[in-house]
Amino acid sequence: MSLKYFFNPQAVAVIGASTKPKKLGRQILDNIIKNNFRGQIFPINLKASRVAGLTAYQDLAQLPLKKWSALLVVIAIPAKFVLAELQKCVSLGIKNIIIITAGFKEDGGIGKKMEEEIVKLAKQHQLNILGPNCLGLINTWQGLNATFARADTETGNSALLSQSGAIGAAALDWLKIKDFNFGYFISLGNQAVINENQVLAYLGKDPRIDLIAAYLEEIKDGQKFMEIVSRLARHKPVAILKSGLSSAGSKLAQSHTGSLAGSAAAVRVGAERAGAIWLENLEELFNLLLLFRKESWHNTGRQELYIITNAGGVAVLTADAISRQNLPFGSSQDLLGDADAQRYQLALEKALKKKKVNNLLVLLTPQTSTEPLKTAQTIITLAQKYPHKLIMASFVGGQELKSARALFAKHNIPSFDYPGEAIRSFKKLIDYKTVLKEVQPYHRPLMEIGNKITSGDYLDSFKLLKQYQIPILKIQRFSSSALKKYHYPVVLKITGPDFSHKTDSGGVVVNLQTAKELRLAVQRFEKKYRSYLKPSRNYLVVQEQAAKFQEIILGFKRDQAFGPLMMVGQGGIYTEVFKDFQLAISDLDQARALKLIRSLKIYPILNGARGQKKYDISALAKALVNLARLANDHPEILELDINPLFVFEHGVRAGDVRVIL
Amino acid sequence: MSLKYFFNPQAVAVIGASTKPKKLGRQILDNIIKNNFRGQIFPINLKASRVAGLTAYQDLAQLPLKKWSALLVVIAIPAKFVLAELQKCVSLGIKNIIIITAGFKEDGGIGKKMEEEIVKLAKQHQLNILGPNCLGLINTWQGLNATFARADTETGNSALLSQSGAIGAAALDWLKIKDFNFGYFISLGNQAVINENQVLAYLGKDPRIDLIAAYLEEIKDGQKFMEIVSRLARHKPVAILKSGLSSAGSKLAQSHTGSLAGSAAAVRVGAERAGAIWLENLEELFNLLLLFRKESWHNTGRQELYIITNAGGVAVLTADAISRQNLPFGSSQDLLGDADAQRYQLALEKALKKKKVNNLLVLLTPQTSTEPLKTAQTIITLAQKYPHKLIMASFVGGQELKSARALFAKHNIPSFDYPGEAIRSFKKLIDYKTVLKEVQPYHRPLMEIGNKITSGDYLDSFKLLKQYQIPILKIQRFSSSALKKYHYPVVLKITGPDFSHKTDSGGVVVNLQTAKELRLAVQRFEKKYRSYLKPSRNYLVVQEQAAKFQEIILGFKRDQAFGPLMMVGQGGIYTEVFKDFQLAISDLDQARALKLIRSLKIYPILNGARGQKKYDISALAKALVNLARLANDHPEILELDINPLFVFEHGVRAGDVRVIL
Repeated sequence: MSLKYFFNPQAVAVIGASTKPKKLGRQILDNIIKNNFRGQIFPINLKASRVAGLTAYQDLAQLPLKKWSALLVVIAIPAKFVLAELQKCVSLGIKNIIIITAGFKEDGGIGKKMEEEIVKLAKQHQLNILGPNCLGLINTWQGLNATFARADTETGNSALLSQSGAIGAAALDWLKIKDFNFGYFISLGNQAVINENQVLAYLGKDPRIDLIAAYLEEIKDGQKFMEIVSRLARHKPVAILKSGLSSAGSKLAQSHTGSLAGSAAAVRVGAERAGAIWLENLEELFNLLLLFRKESWHNTGRQELYIITNAGGVAVLTADAISRQNLPFGSSQDLLGDADAQRYQLALEKALKKKKVNNLLVLLTPQTSTEPLKTAQTIITLAQKYPHKLIMASFVGGQELKSARALFAKHNIPSFDYPGEAIRSFKKLIDYKTVLKEVQPYHRPLMEIGNKITSGDYLDSFKLLKQYQIPILKIQRFSSSALKKYHYPVVLKITGPDFSHKTDSGGVVVNLQTAKELRLAVQRFEKKYRSYLKPSRNYLVVQEQAAKFQEIILGFKRDQAFGPLMMVGQGGIYTEVFKDFQLAISDLDQARALKLIRSLKIYPILNGARGQKKYDISALAKALVNLARLANDHPEILELDINPLFVFEHGVRAGDVRVIL
Repeated sequence: MSLKYFFNPQAVAVIGASTKPKKLGRQILDNIIKNNFRGQIFPINLKASRVAGLTAYQDLAQLPLKKWSALLVVIAIPAKFVLAELQKCVSLGIKNIIIITAGFKEDGGIGKKMEEEIVKLAKQHQLNILGPNCLGLINTWQGLNATFARADTETGNSALLSQSGAIGAAALDWLKIKDFNFGYFISLGNQAVINENQVLAYLGKDPRIDLIAAYLEEIKDGQKFMEIVSRLARHKPVAILKSGLSSAGSKLAQSHTGSLAGSAAAVRVGAERAGAIWLENLEELFNLLLLFRKESWHNTGRQELYIITNAGGVAVLTADAISRQNLPFGSSQDLLGDADAQRYQLALEKALKKKKVNNLLVLLTPQTSTEPLKTAQTIITLAQKYPHKLIMASFVGGQELKSARALFAKHNIPSFDYPGEAIRSFKKLIDYKTVLKEVQPYHRPLMEIGNKITSGDYLDSFKLLKQYQIPILKIQRFSSSALKKYHYPVVLKITGPDFSHKTDSGGVVVNLQTAKELRLAVQRFEKKYRSYLKPSRNYLVVQEQAAKFQEIILGFKRDQAFGPLMMVGQGGIYTEVFKDFQLAISDLDQARALKLIRSLKIYPILNGARGQKKYDISALAKALVNLARLANDHPEILELDINPLFVFEHGVRAGDVRVIL
């Protein structure tokens, strides 16, 4: 169902609009009235005929309305009465509903059952329902504040989305102190019907919205998320703060890839793939709102950051922060401790006139001759004169700077208590400019339905790799009659369900030079593992011996939300020691695979560092692309490790493989 | 000269105490009067007989004083008149002087010369001079504010030290808004005479001071710094914010160790060795002041952090931050969104009663039923009831929390705008508790004066290692007459000033199995490098071939301030790829060397990870200790690399060495 009228209703009815001013429903009604909603407002109240100066109605059916589809109904009555009201909505053809009321899924038991009923009803009748258990919706462009939080804001170009009501409330309160104007605020609540993906898709299409910031606790459909955000990120930034990253779930994984690529990693890699801006904490979320202006990310001029300061020490600390973030640095001009507002003005004018100065950070500490408020006014005037340049301020101190900081907030000048905050936010802006240039729309990988894998048999796993053009070292079951035919040197391995960590359990002998050496090794194994060796379970294999290689690990782990998470990293015994690996979503092509490989720490070695030979990086990338194809085609495989994949001067070969179903 | 009367004068004279209220000297005088200095106050003014209601004197010599050594003179007159006043001080036996005036070294030219005169005078007559070009000194215990900054603070237990006046001013202004009481504030200025080390040593002895926080731009005598701070840190925390860490100086280094161990690294490693708390930025400095209380670091009970919240989302974000910092986590109690002050009180009481709860973080977001101010009052009351427990608050939001935050500030409750700030500060507290237990006093290493090294000759360098009981692979000059006597396999190398990067330039052949193979290799070298091979400059060596080893790099780089900076890390071609190395100050013993080695990422491999063999970690540590001895004994060596040091199952051997004089 289209969300057009949900976000832009022509009329709003509040069920539970009480005559008592402290009741939630009444607070919502008051907010709708105060924010000058551009449409009709209908309080619904069983007894009163007037509420808050408006005519009240006993029942939705009585509303003097023709276009029921353009009505938004806000429900703020006890949970047990909610379903009956929903049914009324259905019978009247009402499509757009916010359920503020709590006491559903989050309470379990009967609450959970009631929510299931809500979902059923919504599916049957294509209802747009926000919540339950949410703060509601604000659309300042419509003058609509359908929440119980105060928000006296003018229209703005940011949208704020939260899966937590409390964090939504905190954000609204923070925005108030910062005098920050936004476009939308959406509290998702339990997401029984409307979830983050639908809201993101809608906001993406609203041309008044330049920036979307979301606090998310769960992304259920990661692939859908990537489809939407990767398209969105090509014209407007989407910033994600995701909580719950310290979950210990990945400890249960069985493969190397599995243990290194937990679900927290999947979200992060998925967000990166989609070009979303990744946030670490609330301060980054808030600071981003302050900084991001459309002009700044469309400015493709030089990216260096320039500094004007009245304190050398603060400038040096700022330069340290710039260096930590690997950002390009222009220059720093020290106006000295006795700089007044006029000295700032002259320096700022001169700097901003220069074409190369696109990004300017003004630092100030309160010293004897400092004029914080006048200097702030100067900065504001110049920011208006140069709207296409980014001017940030960081006035460091406390008492003396209060009014200057308030003035910045009022005039939407990004102002930070500490220069480090400015730098960290600026870094996100610069990174987003790269996303703008590079991000490609995500498509759910096509799946070729082949034969399903039904066992993790060792030789079968190698065959599977071969099917996907991933070269393997020649391998076969040991046969005493073939002793003379092997190309020595060879490797002898015992394989099967009892030997999943062959190296650890001593089940591998390398560098067997002759038939005699191989025979002796076989005899030792037959003695040592007598009770395990059954042709249908555990058996011996002989493999060609590799030489002059680098050991790489390739693998994947299937994530429920984001699909297969591909991995490439340093292989062999170093995999979990140096943790030098990179992860990616499985829509890999050769270019993206190469980029991933180039991000490895070991890349200089692969690429022939310090006069050494070069390894076949192109073949490595091809193997990774092919493995991604395999992962997409075989949803029955949960985890897969190729470790090592031997990378030679020419070509690559899988030396070991492990499939987990 | 003792600093006792400098910091605790019985009388203060201000030279430049003007009748004009805007003049710096007058502002200082006013501050001294306003803060109720417990001693006599003497304005010095050439013309006026009264200034600010006090009797003024034309000249220091007229002061009605007996104990001149207990007088502090503050000079705030133009630079050109300063020296004359200093000479008067000398003739009167005055020892303690603050020069506020700027225009000395920092201006170059005549200013620099005048500062040199000041230094000379101070040395001759043992004067304690703070500055010039500084804000001055505050000692609240004495009621002394000898700065031109307003600071209406009661006595407190922290001392703040700054090498930058501007950052000092910013800090004072910030402390004001936080209602923070401190003990000392010292602005060091140009440090012509008194520097950070002397002040640190003095503050260390003042029992009223529990915490020292310093902003430093330069530590000239790093060894002295370590001597002082390592002793201090055993009973009170010293926190250091050092700027200028992004300097590119280390690019000039010639060895691996040199390029990885720049002077920025030296400061950090030196501070760590001394047990100082390392700060990354101003926000960490300020937040530390809020958090650190003596009770907290002496509390050796359980260290888990407990959380009480009215918002699940904020608690999860906090748990993420705790996990990022590797801190122990107790539990999180969610009082739910409608928690009022009373529900907080009950939960807090219950938690604080438990013996295991030593550290508590109270989170709050402003929701409908939230009572921020009342909840703050509850927290304050309970903090007073449980003075030995650490209670932190993070109320997340803006407008609604203003008065609660102000109340926290007034009552010295550590309150943070974001939970992440609380966690990062708490991490520093927990780390300091480890320092308290473990830090050992630093002693300048004793130097055994042996023969000075005069050349970086390859074979001589190996001999030097042997002298210090660092085992080496057998090595000698190639001699065609000895062809049959070598123990094959061997390695052939060309060495000398033109072959400092032997491997890169193809000057090494390994794995020569027979005399014939060696002879052929020699012939190829003689042909290829004909013009270079001169016995006195470049020559051929034959070295025993190692097998079954791990390659480690050992080295050092001499830092001007902190002495030799020792390095141990993964060796061979991986050194600069994985940057897996650790640095240490050169007072290494076996235990400290082992601790360093255990911090390497490669340590699990050395220690026999995944069923592999163990390498001789004890011999490796011993080699590192011996190399530190060598470094201490040979100040003429600027840099030294042993790369690789082969580590075997039994013993270690140096495979290559490079000495830079």
